[in-house]
Amino acid sequence: MNNEKVNAAIQQYKHIFDSHFKIFHEFLRIPSVSTAEIHREDVVKAADFLVEQLKQLKFKNVKAYPTKRHPIVFGEYLVSSKKPTLLIYGHYDVQPPDPIDQWNSPPFEPQIKGDHLYARGVSDNKGQIWATLSALRAVLQTGDLLFNVKVLYEGEEEIGSPSLDDFLESHQSILACDCILNPDAGMLAPNKPTVTYALRGMAYFELRISGPKADLHSGLFGGVIGNPANILCELIAKMHDENRHITLPGFYDSVRKISEKEKNELDKLGLGVDFYKKNTNVPALQGEVGFSPVEQVSTRPTLDVNGLYSGYIQEGAKTIIPSYAMAKISTRLVPDQDPDAVHQSILKFLEENVPDAVTWELKYLSGAPAYLSEPDGPWFESYLAALRQTWGDEPMIKREGGSIPVATAMKKYLGVDSILTGFGLPDDQIHSPNERLHLPTHKKGVEALIRFFLNP
Amino acid sequence: MNNEKVNAAIQQYKHIFDSHFKIFHEFLRIPSVSTAEIHREDVVKAADFLVEQLKQLKFKNVKAYPTKRHPIVFGEYLVSSKKPTLLIYGHYDVQPPDPIDQWNSPPFEPQIKGDHLYARGVSDNKGQIWATLSALRAVLQTGDLLFNVKVLYEGEEEIGSPSLDDFLESHQSILACDCILNPDAGMLAPNKPTVTYALRGMAYFELRISGPKADLHSGLFGGVIGNPANILCELIAKMHDENRHITLPGFYDSVRKISEKEKNELDKLGLGVDFYKKNTNVPALQGEVGFSPVEQVSTRPTLDVNGLYSGYIQEGAKTIIPSYAMAKISTRLVPDQDPDAVHQSILKFLEENVPDAVTWELKYLSGAPAYLSEPDGPWFESYLAALRQTWGDEPMIKREGGSIPVATAMKKYLGVDSILTGFGLPDDQIHSPNERLHLPTHKKGVEALIRFFLNP
Repeated sequence: MNNEKVNAAIQQYKHIFDSHFKIFHEFLRIPSVSTAEIHREDVVKAADFLVEQLKQLKFKNVKAYPTKRHPIVFGEYLVSSKKPTLLIYGHYDVQPPDPIDQWNSPPFEPQIKGDHLYARGVSDNKGQIWATLSALRAVLQTGDLLFNVKVLYEGEEEIGSPSLDDFLESHQSILACDCILNPDAGMLAPNKPTVTYALRGMAYFELRISGPKADLHSGLFGGVIGNPANILCELIAKMHDENRHITLPGFYDSVRKISEKEKNELDKLGLGVDFYKKNTNVPALQGEVGFSPVEQVSTRPTLDVNGLYSGYIQEGAKTIIPSYAMAKISTRLVPDQDPDAVHQSILKFLEENVPDAVTWELKYLSGAPAYLSEPDGPWFESYLAALRQTWGDEPMIKREGGSIPVATAMKKYLGVDSILTGFGLPDDQIHSPNERLHLPTHKKGVEALIRFFLNP
Repeated sequence: MNNEKVNAAIQQYKHIFDSHFKIFHEFLRIPSVSTAEIHREDVVKAADFLVEQLKQLKFKNVKAYPTKRHPIVFGEYLVSSKKPTLLIYGHYDVQPPDPIDQWNSPPFEPQIKGDHLYARGVSDNKGQIWATLSALRAVLQTGDLLFNVKVLYEGEEEIGSPSLDDFLESHQSILACDCILNPDAGMLAPNKPTVTYALRGMAYFELRISGPKADLHSGLFGGVIGNPANILCELIAKMHDENRHITLPGFYDSVRKISEKEKNELDKLGLGVDFYKKNTNVPALQGEVGFSPVEQVSTRPTLDVNGLYSGYIQEGAKTIIPSYAMAKISTRLVPDQDPDAVHQSILKFLEENVPDAVTWELKYLSGAPAYLSEPDGPWFESYLAALRQTWGDEPMIKREGGSIPVATAMKKYLGVDSILTGFGLPDDQIHSPNERLHLPTHKKGVEALIRFFLNP
């Protein structure tokens, strides 16, 4: 048993917490906003800060690799070529702080109020990087790692990771590993440590319906001309039936049914009608008939209009038949749907349903399959055990409705599944003003990571 | 018979044409753009120009009445209190010339090329004012009028005549008349003199469907949340059935059927599939099943989306469930539909059909009933006879799909029907660059007006 080692590391963590936490504040003071050209140097500064931290921990081959935009930081701590290897992912870039006037304290001057630390990026994702670094430091200062650890920190997550795929593909050998820890997924509540094992995929389209060559006078021509805006609405309406099933031909053919066991696990999460109403302020939910809310958002594919435009949208009235109408339409996909097959399906739907009074064009903007890992195996079990021991309760094992393209890319180029986790909470206000970190949860997270590192 | 008088007036018209036409060019050179503050003085200049023209013709009580924006010019030529009175309407303001770089000659420097005179406003509506002034001048220089004539020229038609209703209501006694000649409606083709006897009305709405209080992540919430954009599309789609009938409750209850005779008259106009396809460049027409194109645009009500907006409409992808969606929806109405009843009908439709996952708001932006005059009576017959004699062919008597609010206002405040006519052609490019006037048709129009003035 490693209980002694675990206890020693946790004691060391507590011992050095205050001094180490000051260094964290330095990290938070760097405005590493990846989307803003004005912060380009700050993003580099944050990468250099992490290089320095890894070197202090005696990591080897530490380097900030340049990319077309922001550097990717790599480092490794190899204990033995016979031991397995964990790759830890993180991103050191942050969202812009706007709207700044809604912050109660400056976004890049970290402040503690009660149980929370406030700063841009403190939860997403600098706090999660800090949790892993804190656990590594405590373990290395009181003993040694039981497996090899590599880290990869990118500076472009908030702008869609444009350099990551190329980097993964061209650095497969140095990144070789047996498991990936991705602490960018968060937990459901302070008392609910969580692992996500499935993410939905996506296929995103832009549909344009064109009619007359220019806007027409709706008085002179209304009645004989197929109105592109009306026709677009009719097509979109026809994409669902009255049970909110999607009607695109063959759309559900490859949807994998979930097992009774998995369904029971999902039901345990407590993500019911009230949870979703409370978090969105809608008067009532509306989902696919025959499925519970948590199944609807995580195990079932969807089709949502993300944007609509046609004709005159300023104040007041203009009486025209618009020459065209446009919709942005995205489908969220589940295993084993193929985004390219969904593209073909929507093309077929349009061929069959668009009336001959208009012409149409469909742009396929992006597609990515769903991500699904098997929630078992030694790494997974070990991580769950660490959570269980730390919180004294059974961890949540969940599917999630969103997409984390990093996990899909890692699987594609490194062939390895990710443990999607983290210690951020739903009310951390990430991407919003007054982003914060719940310190008691953060500290518990570090303890759980110490246990994981010492109980492989 | 007045044939001698007619011939003398027509000869006089030809005799003075060149010198009189130069004065018309002066009128066209005034950039009386009513919507542009920078042209405010020019609009006044155009009003003063007309005051001067009427005084030259010995009109009495000639005055440019100030309004909140642009003046209304009035004048009268009374031959006898025992004679009936014709009120001639016109508007001396013009559309902006933009885009100026698409003009082949400067918009306010009139130029003749072939059979056409090019200038902004030359067809809409200065050329029509000029036709009536030319006919009056020729008649008055060779004899006298057989009935009283009053004129009303407004300077705000292109901005929706905001001062007209007030002026009509407060000047009913000086405007008292037996018939109104409104030459702002045009003809179907150079060989088809035309009178319009019906216009459609309108009820214009803005519908807003609201869901979550802010845009939601379509991955995290897609599947449980009623998407306002999808729901708006479904509501709009449901407003028509598969035969393009409108499904709003009671919508057709007060629609007046047209007689077989009227239907036959409409069929004679030759406004078939080819006419509408050629003028709009659509691949096929789409209208209410069971009616011909000309019936669809002139005798049947319609419902068109004029504008649509929701969510993200810039380039690329954003994965959101939009917090709201908006549509501008207008219905064109026919006799005897009441726009307020249509408002009630759409409210009822929404109450019955909007799902409880969203809330809705309907703004009633404007409403006006259809305009319908009986195409008979002595004035009407006299005008038709003048057209018939001039063109040697039977005039077209048509309904029109658009609205001319002036005619509705005149009927409301003066209790008198308008003869909706004019000598503009469909390809005059009104409201567009290179607006033009077909001079042979213009001259024939003046001859027809001379006949009308002398054959009451």
